[in-house]
Amino acid sequence: MKTFTLTILGTTSAVPTSKRYTSAHILNVCEHYYLFDCGEATQIRIRQEKIPLSKVHHIFISHLHGDHFFGLFGLLSSFQLHRIVTDVYIYAHRPLKNIINTVLPYDEGNVNLHFVELNVDSYEQIYEDKHVKIFSFPLKHRIPVSAFVVKQKEELLKLRKEKIVEFGLSIKEMIDLKNGNDYVDSAGNVIPNDVFTYPPAKLKSYAYITDTIYDESIIPYIYNVDVLYHEATFTSKHANHATLSGHSTAQQAATIAQKANVGKLIIGHFSSRYNDRSIFLDEATQIFSNTILAEEGLKITF
Amino acid sequence: MKTFTLTILGTTSAVPTSKRYTSAHILNVCEHYYLFDCGEATQIRIRQEKIPLSKVHHIFISHLHGDHFFGLFGLLSSFQLHRIVTDVYIYAHRPLKNIINTVLPYDEGNVNLHFVELNVDSYEQIYEDKHVKIFSFPLKHRIPVSAFVVKQKEELLKLRKEKIVEFGLSIKEMIDLKNGNDYVDSAGNVIPNDVFTYPPAKLKSYAYITDTIYDESIIPYIYNVDVLYHEATFTSKHANHATLSGHSTAQQAATIAQKANVGKLIIGHFSSRYNDRSIFLDEATQIFSNTILAEEGLKITF
Repeated sequence: MKTFTLTILGTTSAVPTSKRYTSAHILNVCEHYYLFDCGEATQIRIRQEKIPLSKVHHIFISHLHGDHFFGLFGLLSSFQLHRIVTDVYIYAHRPLKNIINTVLPYDEGNVNLHFVELNVDSYEQIYEDKHVKIFSFPLKHRIPVSAFVVKQKEELLKLRKEKIVEFGLSIKEMIDLKNGNDYVDSAGNVIPNDVFTYPPAKLKSYAYITDTIYDESIIPYIYNVDVLYHEATFTSKHANHATLSGHSTAQQAATIAQKANVGKLIIGHFSSRYNDRSIFLDEATQIFSNTILAEEGLKITF
Repeated sequence: MKTFTLTILGTTSAVPTSKRYTSAHILNVCEHYYLFDCGEATQIRIRQEKIPLSKVHHIFISHLHGDHFFGLFGLLSSFQLHRIVTDVYIYAHRPLKNIINTVLPYDEGNVNLHFVELNVDSYEQIYEDKHVKIFSFPLKHRIPVSAFVVKQKEELLKLRKEKIVEFGLSIKEMIDLKNGNDYVDSAGNVIPNDVFTYPPAKLKSYAYITDTIYDESIIPYIYNVDVLYHEATFTSKHANHATLSGHSTAQQAATIAQKANVGKLIIGHFSSRYNDRSIFLDEATQIFSNTILAEEGLKITF
């Protein structure tokens, strides 16, 4: 089974505390790492979680509030100073490019920084490699925000090993079978593909949704994902304030999860006004039972 | 005795590790806090050390390499979001003003940010309040760098309490005596001031010197300070590299301390290439015995 593990690096909104960090999630797909948001001290959190910094090449920034990108400067600077990463791709909204160029001109080093400007208006594929495709679409907040959805790519069919010997399959025949073609033997008999193959594991998917008001229009884009991270900055007691400030409550996050038929919901981006986070979980699980609270260092293997 | 306590928040150069943070020192003088440099995650370190963030109004940035200022964005943003600080003064080199304005335009809040541009060429007083004067002067590094020296201000003489009753001193007479004037009784007799007073405690002083090559020209500015913090990025094994990169060795820091006749030397800003920091101490103490290593969380009361 291929690795598909999410590690949560920070869970608070707005400001960190002595123990809590601002937004950053990192997804490991077959030892390729995708970083979603980069709050202050993200590079320190990556080191603390023993994730190899040298494998972080793709950084997706949801929006330009500081609790989602202030860690980028230190991270990029470390890449430059350590010369451990040669190409870094940043997927973000346009103003970030100028911000990075303004903050980092003093730094020496030879990292190639590739800035990919996100479309703030519509759903689009923004990334693809051997393992995943990543999509973005807009959320509704006080400033432009992009959500991200990671979808594992369609894999080849798996060969039944005993059939390789039994039929003396050639390399070309094996490739044809893995691609779904039927087998034709030397006498011209067609043998159905499924005699030789079985389906690959279910394709995995993960959605990163922060910051946003309650917005049902996002449901088609996250329908059926295995793991949905949806911000829940407030409890229902502060539902009005949530809407006014462009955020969601735990109940609202759970309602989206339930309507989008996701496998599991993670809620986070909690306001620091709440000392006791259990109320978020109580409120969410009343609507969507398979909900968990984001925690610094929480690892979820899909 | 008045509080004069230094807390070291970060000790590494260039890049943080899972346990070590980049440069930041905070000096508490009578519950007024002065922050020297602000590496990434400084606001988190301040909270961890249980220092009241709301009392940090004056921030002195030595130079614009990221390990000395990347924590400023998060700190200023928290001031704005929490509305706990109304006026913040930043003493730094000119380009930082534009950097801050570029990074922070999205942030809401109503902090008054006062930017004080440091003179990069000469010694000057940059700050004064009831308790201290602070001076800056240039260091020699790859880019402009300012050193900072904090000097406790001359205090009034202390009154001998028993004399207040014995002579039935008025408020005006007490103020005159504390300012050093002699006492004249109702018969016109002059009684010397020192019958009534004793000298205040020795004035304290602290110098913050980072980043710099070995440079004896700074000695007059730090002569006799109680505590000298001097960078020691490398050990003598890498002395050539120290000079080439604009840094000092532990031996060089100790030589400056010895020649400047300081009370105590703290060395820090260690390169992360050294796992064992004891060699820095060994090398420095051979030249200046009252040397200590900077440590995250180290508190020194003068």
